[in-house]
Amino acid sequence: MSENEVIKGRLVSLRAKMKENGIDYYMMPTSDFHNSEYSADFFKVREYFCGFDGSNGTLVVSADEAGLWTDGRYFIQAENQLAGTSVTLYRMGEEGVPTIEEYLADKMQEKEVLGFDGRVVSTEIGERLEKKLSGKKISLKIDKDLAQEVWIDRPALPCHDIYVISDELCGKSFADKLKDVRAKMKEYGASAYLLSKLDDIMWLTNLRGNDVECNPVALSYAYITADKFVLFVQPSEVTIAVKEYCDKVGIELGDYAEVMSYVLDSSFDGNILYDKRNTNFYTYKTLFDKATASKVSMINREDPTELMKAVKNDTELENIREVYARDSAALTEFIYWVKKNVGKIPMTEYSAAMKLDGMRAALPGFIELSFPTISAYNANAAMAHYEATQEACAEVKAEGMLLVDSGGTYMGGTTDVTRTIVVGKISDDIIKHYTATVSGMLNLADAVFKDGCTGRNLDVYARRPLWDIGIDYNHGTGHGIGYMLNVHEGPHSIRWRFTKGANEAVLKPGMIVSDEPGVYIEGSHGIRIENIVEVVNRFESEYGKFYGFDHLTYVPIDLEAIDKKYMDSKSIELLNKYHSEVYKKIEPLINDPEIKAWLKEATRAI
Amino acid sequence: MSENEVIKGRLVSLRAKMKENGIDYYMMPTSDFHNSEYSADFFKVREYFCGFDGSNGTLVVSADEAGLWTDGRYFIQAENQLAGTSVTLYRMGEEGVPTIEEYLADKMQEKEVLGFDGRVVSTEIGERLEKKLSGKKISLKIDKDLAQEVWIDRPALPCHDIYVISDELCGKSFADKLKDVRAKMKEYGASAYLLSKLDDIMWLTNLRGNDVECNPVALSYAYITADKFVLFVQPSEVTIAVKEYCDKVGIELGDYAEVMSYVLDSSFDGNILYDKRNTNFYTYKTLFDKATASKVSMINREDPTELMKAVKNDTELENIREVYARDSAALTEFIYWVKKNVGKIPMTEYSAAMKLDGMRAALPGFIELSFPTISAYNANAAMAHYEATQEACAEVKAEGMLLVDSGGTYMGGTTDVTRTIVVGKISDDIIKHYTATVSGMLNLADAVFKDGCTGRNLDVYARRPLWDIGIDYNHGTGHGIGYMLNVHEGPHSIRWRFTKGANEAVLKPGMIVSDEPGVYIEGSHGIRIENIVEVVNRFESEYGKFYGFDHLTYVPIDLEAIDKKYMDSKSIELLNKYHSEVYKKIEPLINDPEIKAWLKEATRAI
Repeated sequence: MSENEVIKGRLVSLRAKMKENGIDYYMMPTSDFHNSEYSADFFKVREYFCGFDGSNGTLVVSADEAGLWTDGRYFIQAENQLAGTSVTLYRMGEEGVPTIEEYLADKMQEKEVLGFDGRVVSTEIGERLEKKLSGKKISLKIDKDLAQEVWIDRPALPCHDIYVISDELCGKSFADKLKDVRAKMKEYGASAYLLSKLDDIMWLTNLRGNDVECNPVALSYAYITADKFVLFVQPSEVTIAVKEYCDKVGIELGDYAEVMSYVLDSSFDGNILYDKRNTNFYTYKTLFDKATASKVSMINREDPTELMKAVKNDTELENIREVYARDSAALTEFIYWVKKNVGKIPMTEYSAAMKLDGMRAALPGFIELSFPTISAYNANAAMAHYEATQEACAEVKAEGMLLVDSGGTYMGGTTDVTRTIVVGKISDDIIKHYTATVSGMLNLADAVFKDGCTGRNLDVYARRPLWDIGIDYNHGTGHGIGYMLNVHEGPHSIRWRFTKGANEAVLKPGMIVSDEPGVYIEGSHGIRIENIVEVVNRFESEYGKFYGFDHLTYVPIDLEAIDKKYMDSKSIELLNKYHSEVYKKIEPLINDPEIKAWLKEATRAI
Repeated sequence: MSENEVIKGRLVSLRAKMKENGIDYYMMPTSDFHNSEYSADFFKVREYFCGFDGSNGTLVVSADEAGLWTDGRYFIQAENQLAGTSVTLYRMGEEGVPTIEEYLADKMQEKEVLGFDGRVVSTEIGERLEKKLSGKKISLKIDKDLAQEVWIDRPALPCHDIYVISDELCGKSFADKLKDVRAKMKEYGASAYLLSKLDDIMWLTNLRGNDVECNPVALSYAYITADKFVLFVQPSEVTIAVKEYCDKVGIELGDYAEVMSYVLDSSFDGNILYDKRNTNFYTYKTLFDKATASKVSMINREDPTELMKAVKNDTELENIREVYARDSAALTEFIYWVKKNVGKIPMTEYSAAMKLDGMRAALPGFIELSFPTISAYNANAAMAHYEATQEACAEVKAEGMLLVDSGGTYMGGTTDVTRTIVVGKISDDIIKHYTATVSGMLNLADAVFKDGCTGRNLDVYARRPLWDIGIDYNHGTGHGIGYMLNVHEGPHSIRWRFTKGANEAVLKPGMIVSDEPGVYIEGSHGIRIENIVEVVNRFESEYGKFYGFDHLTYVPIDLEAIDKKYMDSKSIELLNKYHSEVYKKIEPLINDPEIKAWLKEATRAI
């Protein structure tokens, strides 16, 4: 094994800084300051100090040891990347492997100091560590980002122009949204509110940014009182248009880097609202200490913006429907392209994804992909976190299936859709699985349910056709989707498992949610069919309001993988009805007569 | 208004006792010491002091005022019964009406004393009062049952012989059950366990009693340590056979009246397990103080016996299936009797119930009814808590429907079943509602679900056919049922609504649960169809275990109220399959050829 002197050198520097700062153990997890889905290069501290670049991992360094914790997806990759670095791999979940908490509780001596950048650690983890280590009187040092002092060529914090989206496009002005938020603050008895969640801040201000991959958000905080609204962003992100807008609507601008000193300088004359799930440990501790000193309480409630944002207004819905139709048409053309060209031109998972991404980019109002396109061929589609790269990807041949999960953010909406495309011969087993998956997707979308239902009540509709044949999928059935925002948002979801104490959000008209059952057979094939649906009013009676779902996604289901013998009559009816709607909505958006003809055939009644 | 001098006189005596004991406000709720579903006459203190005898109500008395809190079902009855007593009616849930807590917090002065018998108040309510009143430094006096000193001719505490049921009938010995309980205690880190729940104590000891109406349980407590098992019952309930059994299996007997002094005399050398939901406030406080003084912790966990009891063993299941078949046959004969005789002989809701109760009593191994039979004709069936009495009941004519919800406890099982019987002409609306109710019942029973599902995942199967026509029922779909025990037992249930923090029990093979959708149209008709089903293994795959339900109840569904035009093909298939099973199971248990012939017709395929 050759030694990795680069990493070793970095660890030497880190340990020197630790000593200088009186830190015995230093922990580096994988997150930005806002627990975003994607972290920018600036935040890749763990990778810098150990070389491991998987999407999940925490590095802990002491004077004598260094350990990296990651999960089963990354054991092999981590082993390779850690070779020669002196960093020990801790395989999370394996028997006999301590958790980080257990490791620290065991190794650390009485009164030692654990350090980490409290801004990249969730309050839940921070509090758990604090409690676990309190027995040994270990103290936490959470206000030091040691990487900043060691990592000379560290990339800058992402810093891109913010832009304003018009009230017309948003359907509701910042002023009106703020009024609702202040009403909630009053209801909760809060006189100030620190909002840390990036997409919530963007939604509330009708601004967008570009600091997180695939999420049109700016690094920011919002501090709200009865008469003030301060938005903390990086000053160089503020364009003239943004400044003018902020002045006009009454948004005071503060420096992102100085949010905590601003809060510390403020006088707390009443209770402070925050959402523990979304507030990092450093911010939480700072707020908490200040509140304690000011003799006011901290009110931990779900960010009220979360539910407001999730229930789309009429303007948003109208735009979303249009955007989804165009996005559906593009995906339909892509499917046609794949089927026509597979086996005839060179095609890889990666090149197919590029083709689709390009088609989306050509659509009006395209901003960016809503997440990196997943393009997975045959057995690759059975792997949960498979990612094809230009260097490492399968060739798509005229045999089997290609699963494509993709979406875009446009002026007017964010999309997410999955189709599994038949590109050649498939087995009867695949047809059986495919048909059951489609039945599940359609049956959930066909639900009629009373106000008060959450996703836990409805999940069985999607799973039942698979459960009937002894198959299940190990992921949720549905997640919320932002409006020109993050492709994953809460508070609602469609999941079936019970978790003690977990909260659930009631499904309300105007929410949009994914409906994405799947089948994953290791080493063989993966199927996922994902539509986005909108919660709509169906009717009202003396018993209450009854809701249903309308499809937003209109893309053909591949009939080459459907066999009626595996469907009940209800599912057949739903498929034919859906396909007739697909044709009606998508045909006018397609120009090529050849594709129109193919679409007619692809959406025929069976 | 004439004065009710009897009640007034009782209140005078009560107030004198309050003064003597330094109690400013005295509260009398509706419960026994174990929060049983039915309270014996001994516990009717609230009724004694105000005259109101509904099933729910709390009386609060101070030197100058007396107030009775009850819910909407009882406003009219309470108004009548309270007339002339000087007791004010507080209509719970109406706007502007304070809750008891609010009333006390408002009326009571600093440092006054609130008294109640802590044995008839749940710990949840006790703690809430304690907290709410702490601001005013109000103290609670919870060890005084003032009624005992005032109510001269108070009925005695129920006291009936206990009996042993054989290990053969129970399928598992006390020793084996105790081993399981002790294993759980160890897992929870408890060295002692006070079990307050009567049906759990009966299940664990393989004993039964007769101290609560329709519940074959004895008033009791069990105190369990690693090497001791003490059962506290009223000494005069212990027959020679019970004493011999207890000696043999190692059950030490204590006096029910002395359980708390026993606990106080014990040395607590480890943590104490208890279940807050099932432990009354007085018991809880006594345990808590003793634990605090002994420097050990209280471990609040769901009684481990609850889940053990709910998952029936093979012997229990075998007996249950037999008992349900016989009980189903009796109800089938009753339905025949009703249909044959209605309009020809005098028949009332009450007399019909008597007839059915008599038929059950004649069955082998009959012990008692599992609850008072509900017999409700036409519009009466739409009332949630309707109870026909000999004095006040409707005549059953050859028109409309009779809803009968009933059950028995037998050696070998406890039953619960509802059928709504057509006795004459019914409207098309009724047929539509009836058909949807039946479809719901059958569709839930047809569920296939993965291990991990709770009733919240499955409830929609029962409601969907009703939701589709804008109807809902305002009660749960299913509850667990005891084995020769209480007709309602946990921890599982089938309900759809989300309650923050509420626990849910995963459905496991061997659990039995009711499946009882309904339609209630005020002033017109009420429909409920209730089968009991058993959770069974269906199949297992690499994705886990999949379960389903088997029917335990085999009683015809009234085809006179079914119209295929309101059913989908799946429901029709399920109904025909169910009816063919009913015929197969029940026909051999019926002797009368006329009824056999009728059953054949009543279970015909449609």
